[in-house]
Amino acid sequence: MTQTAYQAPLELMELALRQAAQGSGAVALDGYAEVLGDLARPILESAARFAAEVLSPLNRVGDRTPSYCTSGGVVTPPGFAAAYARFYRDGWVSLSAPVASGGQGLPTLIAAATAEMWGGANLAFAMCPELAAGAIAALQGLGAPGLPEEYVSCLVSGEWTATMCLTEPQSGSDLSTLRTRADPCGAGWRLFGRKIYISWGDHDLTENIVHFVLARTPASPPGLKGISLFLVPKKIRSASGELQDNDIHAVSVEHKMGIRASPTCVMALGEREGARGWLIGRLHEGLSCMFTIMNHMRLGVGLHSLGLAERALQLARTHARERLQGRDSKGAQRPIIEHADVRRMLLTMKSLTLAARCMAYTTAATLDVAQLAENEQVRAGAVRRADLLTPVVKAWCSDAAVEVASLGVQVHGGMGYIDDSEISQVYRDARIGPIFEGTNYIQAQDLLRRKIVHDGGRTLAELLSDIEIAARRLPTEADHPLAQLRAGLLEGSAQLHAAASRLIDAAPAEPDLLGSTACYVLQWLGLLAGGWQLALATSSVPASATPARAVIDCAVFYGSQILPRIRTYAATVAAGARPVTGASISDL
Amino acid sequence: MTQTAYQAPLELMELALRQAAQGSGAVALDGYAEVLGDLARPILESAARFAAEVLSPLNRVGDRTPSYCTSGGVVTPPGFAAAYARFYRDGWVSLSAPVASGGQGLPTLIAAATAEMWGGANLAFAMCPELAAGAIAALQGLGAPGLPEEYVSCLVSGEWTATMCLTEPQSGSDLSTLRTRADPCGAGWRLFGRKIYISWGDHDLTENIVHFVLARTPASPPGLKGISLFLVPKKIRSASGELQDNDIHAVSVEHKMGIRASPTCVMALGEREGARGWLIGRLHEGLSCMFTIMNHMRLGVGLHSLGLAERALQLARTHARERLQGRDSKGAQRPIIEHADVRRMLLTMKSLTLAARCMAYTTAATLDVAQLAENEQVRAGAVRRADLLTPVVKAWCSDAAVEVASLGVQVHGGMGYIDDSEISQVYRDARIGPIFEGTNYIQAQDLLRRKIVHDGGRTLAELLSDIEIAARRLPTEADHPLAQLRAGLLEGSAQLHAAASRLIDAAPAEPDLLGSTACYVLQWLGLLAGGWQLALATSSVPASATPARAVIDCAVFYGSQILPRIRTYAATVAAGARPVTGASISDL
Repeated sequence: MTQTAYQAPLELMELALRQAAQGSGAVALDGYAEVLGDLARPILESAARFAAEVLSPLNRVGDRTPSYCTSGGVVTPPGFAAAYARFYRDGWVSLSAPVASGGQGLPTLIAAATAEMWGGANLAFAMCPELAAGAIAALQGLGAPGLPEEYVSCLVSGEWTATMCLTEPQSGSDLSTLRTRADPCGAGWRLFGRKIYISWGDHDLTENIVHFVLARTPASPPGLKGISLFLVPKKIRSASGELQDNDIHAVSVEHKMGIRASPTCVMALGEREGARGWLIGRLHEGLSCMFTIMNHMRLGVGLHSLGLAERALQLARTHARERLQGRDSKGAQRPIIEHADVRRMLLTMKSLTLAARCMAYTTAATLDVAQLAENEQVRAGAVRRADLLTPVVKAWCSDAAVEVASLGVQVHGGMGYIDDSEISQVYRDARIGPIFEGTNYIQAQDLLRRKIVHDGGRTLAELLSDIEIAARRLPTEADHPLAQLRAGLLEGSAQLHAAASRLIDAAPAEPDLLGSTACYVLQWLGLLAGGWQLALATSSVPASATPARAVIDCAVFYGSQILPRIRTYAATVAAGARPVTGASISDL
Repeated sequence: MTQTAYQAPLELMELALRQAAQGSGAVALDGYAEVLGDLARPILESAARFAAEVLSPLNRVGDRTPSYCTSGGVVTPPGFAAAYARFYRDGWVSLSAPVASGGQGLPTLIAAATAEMWGGANLAFAMCPELAAGAIAALQGLGAPGLPEEYVSCLVSGEWTATMCLTEPQSGSDLSTLRTRADPCGAGWRLFGRKIYISWGDHDLTENIVHFVLARTPASPPGLKGISLFLVPKKIRSASGELQDNDIHAVSVEHKMGIRASPTCVMALGEREGARGWLIGRLHEGLSCMFTIMNHMRLGVGLHSLGLAERALQLARTHARERLQGRDSKGAQRPIIEHADVRRMLLTMKSLTLAARCMAYTTAATLDVAQLAENEQVRAGAVRRADLLTPVVKAWCSDAAVEVASLGVQVHGGMGYIDDSEISQVYRDARIGPIFEGTNYIQAQDLLRRKIVHDGGRTLAELLSDIEIAARRLPTEADHPLAQLRAGLLEGSAQLHAAASRLIDAAPAEPDLLGSTACYVLQWLGLLAGGWQLALATSSVPASATPARAVIDCAVFYGSQILPRIRTYAATVAAGARPVTGASISDL
């Protein structure tokens, strides 16, 4: 079978970029239109080349020769270190970092498109640099007294990489039971503890690694309120100017179902004198500090996931065009892409991927508005919109990627189950998306509890209103191919509005109501947001543009074959908590 | 984390057995009630012990040390040969083979329950003996002139194993392009060709292997009509009584995503003088002969898949009871099973698994009726019912297993992505179900084209009528927890009846209509059949029985949280072929 390198779908990406800039209002930001107009294409083309020529060929290598741990540290697959060196020297890490910190100051939106490419070409690799951008934002916003400037500049340039160290064996989704300890020591801190599931916790790509570690300080309050955030470097520069080992190292690397090139490390801190660290932000405010990085990573997971979905589509489409099975009416063999069910699968894959792309890019553009708009109210509105959409992007796009990858396997038939076919790797790689950076249930809880119920439904109502406006602009003829998209969006929005109001009202009296319905609400909103974006795309794509036909086809298909899933969620949410809480735990 | 062995859910299995026997009418067959009453329990207990003590511990071994190919043949993982020797000597292969052939003559239904156990404990192992039962049925029904009796008796006893050799590199779902050649040679045949994806095509478990090979004879008509079925042994007994190599051998073993202990072989036939073979059934009727075996394997895939789903449930439930995250209102740490979303996931897993079990067992019992009922009309009705349900069992149960396994991974969080956790293997193993023994789309086509449209909808209407009868027996109070199951079954059945009529009427004029909707129709019918079985279970389970509460909980949950998926399929089927056929292939 033919295996070609990942190819960034530049035309659809540009379409999604323009639509995101317009729909979010980012296009009005100072210099934004120019950047999108003149600069975007060469940047995207250059990124696409890097993805196709450097990262994509290493994807299979990383799966076959996973990273492993030695007494001298973690060894990554052949070619990864050289690729990373080119990656950061070519400026891909510093793309959207502020100019003041040595970054290139490009919109988050542009960086989002490149993140999709890295994820699509090589997810295991892509996870490594993604952390830096979030880390830079955290350091910018919070500061770290006494921290040498070198740490910021080397993160911005990509010369050093970052990690997030949250999870401990007893403490995963619930961080309140965290035990890692930070003791004051002179002007700084010494950390002791053990962290697990640390992505790229150690490696041989760079000279140094900057860990962002959650820990407890002496006499801090118990639970979540007593947690602080520390910067703990792998190596610290001595008085004589050399980088010397800090007391933190990788103990082991997990063997995983996928993303095998990405070393998932168990990290030991303070096996000797304690790992030296700097406090970031204020004492006991570690969680909210970490959320700056975490939110960035959540958008990143969504972007990488949609890149993977795109990759699955590319592999399946290529296979479906080449594989001959069955005959046409004249007896000639047909490529399987001509079979209706294969097209149904490919259209499902493509419309989910395009919806996910537009949704994730729009969220990225909204973050640009939240940061850069002159008007404070506009900024505040964008903050709320981005807060609402971020968990949806993370969870819905990663779930969609699992579905799309699974369809990709199915299109391949038996070949999809063989290690030789890249689609089988995509399927395994995609499964991490719904788990890490907060499980998709954590996202759903965040969405429903914090972003909808605590908000009184205001931000949701604003979004649903925008969705309705977009739907009403679709053709009104009852037999128009887009009629179902229009009707589904209008009906689904109105129903979600009503359902959310009921949940807000009933939640105080029913303890498990939100927990039982959160996942369904997230899927519901994700389906609507995806349909909204495709509705916008049908009007924003110029009829003469190459992808115009593909966009219309996806919107029609989504409206009639994907959006109806809302009917299921409407029913399951309406059932409330009783089907779950009424069931006996001991008989499960 | 605790990893316990697979434990067959005996009480739920017995419930499903009784219900299947009653619902299918098999209970009226001669001796059936006695077998189920007195014999079932000791047989199931004995099978459960074998599954837990012998097969389950080898499951991880097989994943870590896959089968591999040497010049002397395929080597299976340590322990597999000894386990197989015990397996066949304990009589598990001959369980449901006819007494006349040396089998034990037990109902297919009992064998179905054991097949679930083998699949749940060790899917890679389970696939090997499953083929024998289908092969025996084919030989019984068709005969093979001149075939030494030894081949039948050694298949029945399990001393030798069987394979199906269909696929060739250019010929998968479409067998019309098959090239393997059978030339007449004396009283027999010599075969030449290459077969791929042959499960257990070679191994070191038994002295001999009996291959069932599709091939073309000289001057046979082109396409599907020119294909015949041959029995080609790995070894043939010489005049002096020794088993000597036939001209067929494994060239290589695929490296696969899962079921790694199961050697998926490329087989070469006739590299020297040609592989000796015997014609089975009549010339040019190979496909219909093969379907006897294939239909057995399709039920087998359904049974194995539901076993895997059960295994995923067991692993997830154990993890959810042990893993502490979050706190209750008094500040004590809670096992995650107390969190609403985790229970939602476990209930989804359990209700899908229970529905799949009852559906698959009912199909097995229906096969017993089809074979053994005295009344010819009863037999004919059962044949049609089993023909209708078999593709649903294969596809719906294997899709459900993928979903359940994925939820199992999700319940495990990060641990579910680590190779150390068995759930990650279950997830990879489960993905083969929708692909092999005819992809799930092939099943859907078979269901919609042959079993519904060509049948004029008669058999479907009979089944839907049974579903409605069962639904009407559920409690009628509008606020009863089972009200949604009742309403969903009634509404879903009536709608499917109407939708099928529309498809039957419209199909002749719309070439891609059935191809575009078949997968949705299969899911729809699967959801209904699953709900039907759970509705029956609520009335057939004695209120005092241990699993009574679990059955009710599953039925309630299924009715309100699973069955509403029908609403989506009703909409997608109603949209017809246009969303697929209206889309441009070149723009995909």
